[in-house]
Amino acid sequence: MRIRALIVAYAGLLAVFIAYVYHYQHDVSRIQSVNEDTSPFYGKPDEKYVMVTFQSGMDYWKRCLKGFEDAAEALNVSVEYRGATQYDVNEQVTVLEQVIARKPAGIAVSAINPTALTKTINKAVEEGIPVVLFDSNASGSKAFSFLGTNNYSAGVTAAHEMAKLLKNEGKVAIITSPHQLNHQERTRGFVETIYQKYPRMQVVAVKNGKGDAMASKQAAMEILKDYPDVQGIFATEANGGVGMAEAVKELNKKEIKLISFDTEKQTLDLVKGGVIAATLAQGTWNMGYWSLQFLFHLHHHLTSPSRSGDSPLPTYVDTGITVVTRENVDHFYAK
Amino acid sequence: MRIRALIVAYAGLLAVFIAYVYHYQHDVSRIQSVNEDTSPFYGKPDEKYVMVTFQSGMDYWKRCLKGFEDAAEALNVSVEYRGATQYDVNEQVTVLEQVIARKPAGIAVSAINPTALTKTINKAVEEGIPVVLFDSNASGSKAFSFLGTNNYSAGVTAAHEMAKLLKNEGKVAIITSPHQLNHQERTRGFVETIYQKYPRMQVVAVKNGKGDAMASKQAAMEILKDYPDVQGIFATEANGGVGMAEAVKELNKKEIKLISFDTEKQTLDLVKGGVIAATLAQGTWNMGYWSLQFLFHLHHHLTSPSRSGDSPLPTYVDTGITVVTRENVDHFYAK
Repeated sequence: MRIRALIVAYAGLLAVFIAYVYHYQHDVSRIQSVNEDTSPFYGKPDEKYVMVTFQSGMDYWKRCLKGFEDAAEALNVSVEYRGATQYDVNEQVTVLEQVIARKPAGIAVSAINPTALTKTINKAVEEGIPVVLFDSNASGSKAFSFLGTNNYSAGVTAAHEMAKLLKNEGKVAIITSPHQLNHQERTRGFVETIYQKYPRMQVVAVKNGKGDAMASKQAAMEILKDYPDVQGIFATEANGGVGMAEAVKELNKKEIKLISFDTEKQTLDLVKGGVIAATLAQGTWNMGYWSLQFLFHLHHHLTSPSRSGDSPLPTYVDTGITVVTRENVDHFYAK
Repeated sequence: MRIRALIVAYAGLLAVFIAYVYHYQHDVSRIQSVNEDTSPFYGKPDEKYVMVTFQSGMDYWKRCLKGFEDAAEALNVSVEYRGATQYDVNEQVTVLEQVIARKPAGIAVSAINPTALTKTINKAVEEGIPVVLFDSNASGSKAFSFLGTNNYSAGVTAAHEMAKLLKNEGKVAIITSPHQLNHQERTRGFVETIYQKYPRMQVVAVKNGKGDAMASKQAAMEILKDYPDVQGIFATEANGGVGMAEAVKELNKKEIKLISFDTEKQTLDLVKGGVIAATLAQGTWNMGYWSLQFLFHLHHHLTSPSRSGDSPLPTYVDTGITVVTRENVDHFYAK
């Protein structure tokens, strides 16, 4: 009887074991299928996406890259950051060619000017490498999308903010870089909004600040000399903001409302100190994040089901503008 | 000895079993952690996203909904389609209120007009329900983003296409709905492009087609009577396209180049038959797909790391335009 009892126990154990093994295989395949079949948003760590900029050491790119990296982490892929170290067209073309030669899964490019990179970008696309543009467009190229600030809208936002600061009344001026398209558009958005929406306001001067703090300071001095009743100045780029702040400090005219652009540390300090009333922050994290999302979608064929000639992705993404004042400035210092 | 042999076998089997169970638990937790820790793009099937339209039976919405559904499938969440059956403001407000009451994970709304839904949309956002707008905007609302066609750009595209058809020379006319903003913008993009880029072309008439095929036919007849040398007509909406096609057939003036809008079956048939030279397809799949992606990002807090007042998502997505001609028309029939 002992032997029979052992055999029965033995058989029972075997049955449990078999049942368990069956259950295990079933479970594992179910879990694996959940992971593999239903999450297309899961790449391979050796799948590399490259961000290419110019003046690659600028603070401005940091938050673009952070968005790019955050998306890469979420999608389980790798990123690399490359760029021309200088403001040098040929250097950026060379860097981009080197990146293409290594056949990455996708490239996000900020173009140093609207035409110089077009040929190189088109070569990448023709070789089957997904390319999107961010921050600065090359609209004649075959890149699939552009993600950046709508500069006209940014100018409109600046105008509304200026009107709020001046209670819808008074003379204002602009310091800009008149030869760059993005600055022309910021200027146009500002001027047209003041003209159309604020009849008791007037833009009395538009000066060339040459993208330089010293030249912009000089421009601001001239404005304040020629129009002593000017009550506000909008600078369409960061160095212009620093320059006009210096002019206002030197002339001890701190009552003049200044609006600047971007969120360099120097600008933020001037906002915090109350010299600059507001500055406009671009949606840089969104530029990087959605650039990588778009490239991943192209690489994995997750875009619009192909119709001949159909745009596989949205052609333009406006990443938005945020008004930074003393109240929220602390959130904008790099962490 | 037989008993001892059985006991040894028994012990061995038990050891294998224990080892197996251990291995199984380890494996399952490893696989689950791959899935749970590394793919944030994996929702719950009971997580429901709702698309809300007006004239909800229109063919036009089908491809928007397809994009919405495709994104939902990829993200493992559920969708629901609701809408006002008629072109009725109050009905859409009521439908939207009913949807909000059920606290979905997110809502994508196409607004019947720019203002009527603002209060209801704001209520949803204040209650913590993510809302984006697609196709038709309500720009004063608290919705997080708008995804749709840039109608001015669509008009620009139509102008370039018309110039190509007419070899940059000749008189053209427009049939539009002058009281609707999107049609005003399509008209403006067309007129300004012809004026600025094609000095040997001229827009000689802009007529009200009332969004109706009969009225548009009448408008086209008048244009062709008043300006017998008109060589092309651009209709900014689908019924206008059908109407002008009828006029051209009736007057046996098939040499006149017609450009229409959207991809209703009747329009596609006219393109296939060579009566309409080209029609403009909107990026409807992208509207739906990226609306759901954006809502999912908001619901799961995957958006831009919060800076006070910062826009968590891109504020505007231009979903693009595709020119449909006889060559690619077959791809645009609903499948």
